[in-house]
Amino acid sequence: MIILVDMDNTLADFDVALLERWRELYPNEFHVPLEKRTTFYTFLDYPEHLQDKIHDLCHSEGFIRNLPPVEGGIEAVKEMLERGHDVRFCSSHLFQYDNSVLEKYRWIEQHFGRKLVDRIVFTRDKTLIHGDILIDDKPAISGLRKPDWEHVIYDRPYNRQITGQRRLTWANWRDILFPEETEPAAT
Amino acid sequence: MIILVDMDNTLADFDVALLERWRELYPNEFHVPLEKRTTFYTFLDYPEHLQDKIHDLCHSEGFIRNLPPVEGGIEAVKEMLERGHDVRFCSSHLFQYDNSVLEKYRWIEQHFGRKLVDRIVFTRDKTLIHGDILIDDKPAISGLRKPDWEHVIYDRPYNRQITGQRRLTWANWRDILFPEETEPAAT
Repeated sequence: MIILVDMDNTLADFDVALLERWRELYPNEFHVPLEKRTTFYTFLDYPEHLQDKIHDLCHSEGFIRNLPPVEGGIEAVKEMLERGHDVRFCSSHLFQYDNSVLEKYRWIEQHFGRKLVDRIVFTRDKTLIHGDILIDDKPAISGLRKPDWEHVIYDRPYNRQITGQRRLTWANWRDILFPEETEPAAT
Repeated sequence: MIILVDMDNTLADFDVALLERWRELYPNEFHVPLEKRTTFYTFLDYPEHLQDKIHDLCHSEGFIRNLPPVEGGIEAVKEMLERGHDVRFCSSHLFQYDNSVLEKYRWIEQHFGRKLVDRIVFTRDKTLIHGDILIDDKPAISGLRKPDWEHVIYDRPYNRQITGQRRLTWANWRDILFPEETEPAAT
C-alpha cells in the first residue's frame, strides 16, 4: 500500500509545542488546554486579539524544526516501511513558507535520517497525490479532485465530530489499518 | 486540464546559469557548450575531476534563487491559467536540499507572486502526482507507479534521443498542446 502520512499534529506534535511555548511566553494570558481544542487551525480557538501572536509563534524560526514527535509515530512509520508499504510524508507549507518549508525537511532528516527525506511530498492540495491511505488530523480534506486515498483520521479533540471514517492513533494503528492481522490466532 | 510543469531547465534556465557561472569562476577550465550537452544531470557531462566543483556550484547559496527564467515560460504558465487550466509547479529538491528547497519557493514567488506559491508540488517521485500532462525536460521519468499524465518533453539537446512523445518549447507550446485551436480558421 501507498500510505501518505501528514506531519503537523499527526507525526509532529504542533499543538503540544505551541501550548508549551505560549505559556512560557505569556504565562498570564488566556490559553486553550489540548483536550479543549475545537478547531483545526489553532489560532481560531483563540480570541481575535491574540491570533497574531499565535501566528507569529508558529512561524518563528526553529518552531517547526523543534516540534516533538507524537509518541509512537516514528516507530509506526518505520514499521510500515519494514512491512513493505510505501510511506510518503505528505505535508504543506504554513501560511508563510519561509521557515516552515526547510524546517520540515530538517525535521524528517533529524527523526528518520537523510534517505527518508526523499519520501517527502509537499503540496497544498493532497487530492492531487496518489495513495491508498492518507493519515491526517484535518477533519475535512478537499481539493481539485476526488482523492484516490481513504482518509483515515488521526484522532485529535478537534476532529471528533467526524464520524463514518476510520480513526487511529499511534497506539492502535495496527488494529485499525490491519485488523485481519490482529485477530486472535485460531488454535 | 491539470498541467504539471517542471522547474529546472523547463521554467528556470539551470544550464544557462550554470555555464555562465562556471566560465566566470573557471575561465580556463573545460566546459560543455549548451548545444553539446548530452546528459540530464549536467555534472555527468564533465570529467570526473570536475564533478565536485559542478555539484558545489549548483548547490551554492543563491544559485537556484537567481536562475533566469526560460524565455516565454512564465508567460506560457500565466496564459494556461487564464485559459482555465490548473497548472502546478512540479519539482524536487536537489541532492542536497538545504538551499534548493527554499530557493525554489522564492523563485516561484519572485516570478509569479505569492499566490502561485500554493501551486508548488514538491516530490522526488512525479508518478505519484495526478495530472493530465507533465511538461519536463527529463528524458525518462519513472517511479512507483504508471503515471496518469502524458509526459510532454521540454526540448533540450540531451533529450533528443527520445522519440514518440510530444515535445515542445515555450515558443511552440500552443501548437503542441492545443493543435485544434491553432488550425487556420475556416472561412
